[in-house]
Amino acid sequence: MEKIRIGIVGYGNLGKSAELGIRQNKDMELTGIFSRRNPQDLQLQDEAIPVYHLDQAAQMTDQIDVMVLCGGSLSDLPVQGPALAGLFNTVDGFDTHAKIPEYFDAVNLKAIQANKTCIIASGWDPGMFSLNRIYAEAILPVGETYTFWGEGVSQGHSDAIRRIDGVLDAKQYTIPVPEAIEAVQNGSLPKLTTREKHRRVCYVVADQGADRQRIEQTIKTMPNYFADYDTDVHFVSEDDLNRDHAGLPHGGLVIRYGQTGSNNDHSHTIEYRLKLDSNPDFTANVLLAYARAAYRMNRDGQFGAKTVADVAPAYLSAKSAVEIRQQLI
Amino acid sequence: MEKIRIGIVGYGNLGKSAELGIRQNKDMELTGIFSRRNPQDLQLQDEAIPVYHLDQAAQMTDQIDVMVLCGGSLSDLPVQGPALAGLFNTVDGFDTHAKIPEYFDAVNLKAIQANKTCIIASGWDPGMFSLNRIYAEAILPVGETYTFWGEGVSQGHSDAIRRIDGVLDAKQYTIPVPEAIEAVQNGSLPKLTTREKHRRVCYVVADQGADRQRIEQTIKTMPNYFADYDTDVHFVSEDDLNRDHAGLPHGGLVIRYGQTGSNNDHSHTIEYRLKLDSNPDFTANVLLAYARAAYRMNRDGQFGAKTVADVAPAYLSAKSAVEIRQQLI
Repeated sequence: MEKIRIGIVGYGNLGKSAELGIRQNKDMELTGIFSRRNPQDLQLQDEAIPVYHLDQAAQMTDQIDVMVLCGGSLSDLPVQGPALAGLFNTVDGFDTHAKIPEYFDAVNLKAIQANKTCIIASGWDPGMFSLNRIYAEAILPVGETYTFWGEGVSQGHSDAIRRIDGVLDAKQYTIPVPEAIEAVQNGSLPKLTTREKHRRVCYVVADQGADRQRIEQTIKTMPNYFADYDTDVHFVSEDDLNRDHAGLPHGGLVIRYGQTGSNNDHSHTIEYRLKLDSNPDFTANVLLAYARAAYRMNRDGQFGAKTVADVAPAYLSAKSAVEIRQQLI
Repeated sequence: MEKIRIGIVGYGNLGKSAELGIRQNKDMELTGIFSRRNPQDLQLQDEAIPVYHLDQAAQMTDQIDVMVLCGGSLSDLPVQGPALAGLFNTVDGFDTHAKIPEYFDAVNLKAIQANKTCIIASGWDPGMFSLNRIYAEAILPVGETYTFWGEGVSQGHSDAIRRIDGVLDAKQYTIPVPEAIEAVQNGSLPKLTTREKHRRVCYVVADQGADRQRIEQTIKTMPNYFADYDTDVHFVSEDDLNRDHAGLPHGGLVIRYGQTGSNNDHSHTIEYRLKLDSNPDFTANVLLAYARAAYRMNRDGQFGAKTVADVAPAYLSAKSAVEIRQQLI
C-alpha cells in the first residue's frame, strides 16, 4: 500500500497526539517531527522518528505529502500556516473563530501559487461542530442552532489563571448548564446569555503565603475569561491537582431545533455530541483524517485553502468509494 | 435572486412534504408536480402549482433544474431513477441499503451520458446517518459504530401488518433498547443481537369477527419483520388509532465509541441523534438541501451519480463560502 507521508510541525500536546494517531491509520507514515526548538531537546514517544529543525523543512518538500501543523493559533499558525502553504499540503486546527476569514485568505494566496491544498480550522470546534452547524441549518432552514462546550478543560482559561500572581498551577473546567440544553431540546427557542449557557469551575494551587481571597476575586472578575460567568474557585494542593485533574477531557454539543409543515407544526432536533477523554488526541485524529483529504484533493487538482465545508466526506475515509457505498451508506 | 427550479416526482407523503419544504428555501421555486396518476386526481396543498403526468417530463428539461424523486424504493425508483437521470439532475432517498451499489451504477451510467448530477440515497438513513458513520470512523479508526432507529413509526412494518387477513389498519413503532445504548456509551463494545438492539410495538385495528390471537401470532412470527424481535401487539379501535397514532414521528442515533493513546487508554464517543416529529418532512428537507447541491455540482461540471459521501458540505448551504467561513466555521 502506498502510504501518505506525514510531517508534524510542533511537538506540544497536539503534536504528541498526532504522533500516536498516525499509528492508527494504516495508510499513513510519519516522516519526521519539525520544531523550532533544538531537535536534541525533544523527547519523542518513538525514538526512531527523526526530529528536524523547522528551518530544514524547505529542503524536504519531496519527502512529505502533508504537513500537520500543531502549533498555537495565537502566534505560531499565523506565521507558519501561510509560510508552509507555499511548500506543502497542510492541515491545521486554527481556532480563533473571528480571524478565520483573514487566515484563510493568507493561506489561500500561498497555496494557490504553489499548487498546494491546505485545510485550515479543522479539529472539532472549529471542525466537526462547524460541519454540523452547516448540515443542520441547510436541512432545517427554519430554526435555531446552539453550541455548548464541555464538560471539559479549557487550556486558555487554565493559562489565564496561572498568570495571576501567587498561583502555582490551575485547571479550569467549562460546564454547560443542563437547564439551557433542556430548554433548547424542548423547543422553547431560548435567547441564552453567556451566563445561562455555561459555568466555570477552577481548581487552583496557590503559593503558600498568597492571599486566596485576592486570587479568587481576580479570577471571578477577569474580563472576557470569567466576569460574564458564574465561576466556582476551589483551592487544592499540588498533589490533588496532579492526581484528580491531570487529564485534558473535553466535549460538547451542537443542537439545532427546527420546524416544518404548513404551519410549522412539526418540530425536529438534530444533536451532535462529543465526549472526549483527551482533547488533543481527538483533535489530532481529526487533523489526520483531513490530512488524508488534503493529499487526495491535491492529487485531484483541488488547490488552495479549504475548510471542512469544502471537503467531500469520502475524502476522509480510508475506504474506497465502492466500500463506502457497500458498508457505510 | 436566481432561483433553483424544482420538480417533484410522486405525490405521496414525501412528495407532499417536499412541496412544503420548498417554501422554507428562498432560493428555490416549485415548477410542478409529476405523477403517474391522472393530474386531475391530485389534491395539492397549493392549488396554484401545476400538476403534470410523468410522461410530460421529457418535454420539460429546459424548465426544471433538479427533479426530486419522491417515489418508493421497491418499485418506483429502480425504474424512475435511471430514466430521469438521463434527462435531469436528480436527488432521491433510495433506501434499500443492500441494493445501493447496483442502483448507483444504473443511475451513474445514464447521468454520465447526459452530463447530469444525480444524488442517490439521500435522506437520513441512508443519508445523514451514513455521513456520520463515515466521519466518525475516519476520525476514530480504532472503535466500533452502532446505529439505533426510533422511537418511531416504520411504514414498511406497518404495511406488513396491514396485509394480514382480518387487519383493517395498523401502526408499528420501532423502539431502541435503552440498555443497549447505555452499553455502547459506556464503552463495553457490546456485540448486540437484533433482539437486544430494538423492540417493536404494534397498534392494530382488527375486523370485528377476526381472530385476534391468530393475528397476534402471525405478526410475532413474521420472518424478517418481527420474528427476531420482542414484539408487543395492542388491539385498538380505529378511532384510537386515528387519535393517538396519526403522525409519522421517527428518529435515531449513530454512536461511535473509539479509543486513542499509546495503549488505547483514552475513550471517546461521537453521537449523532435525530428526533423527528415528521419523518417525511425531515426526509424531504434533506432531499431539498441535496437538490441545491446537485444543481451547483452540475454547474461545476461534477457529473454522474453521487451519494452524500461525495458532496462537500458547502454545496448544501444557502450561504456563500465567505458567509460560511464568517458565521458557521
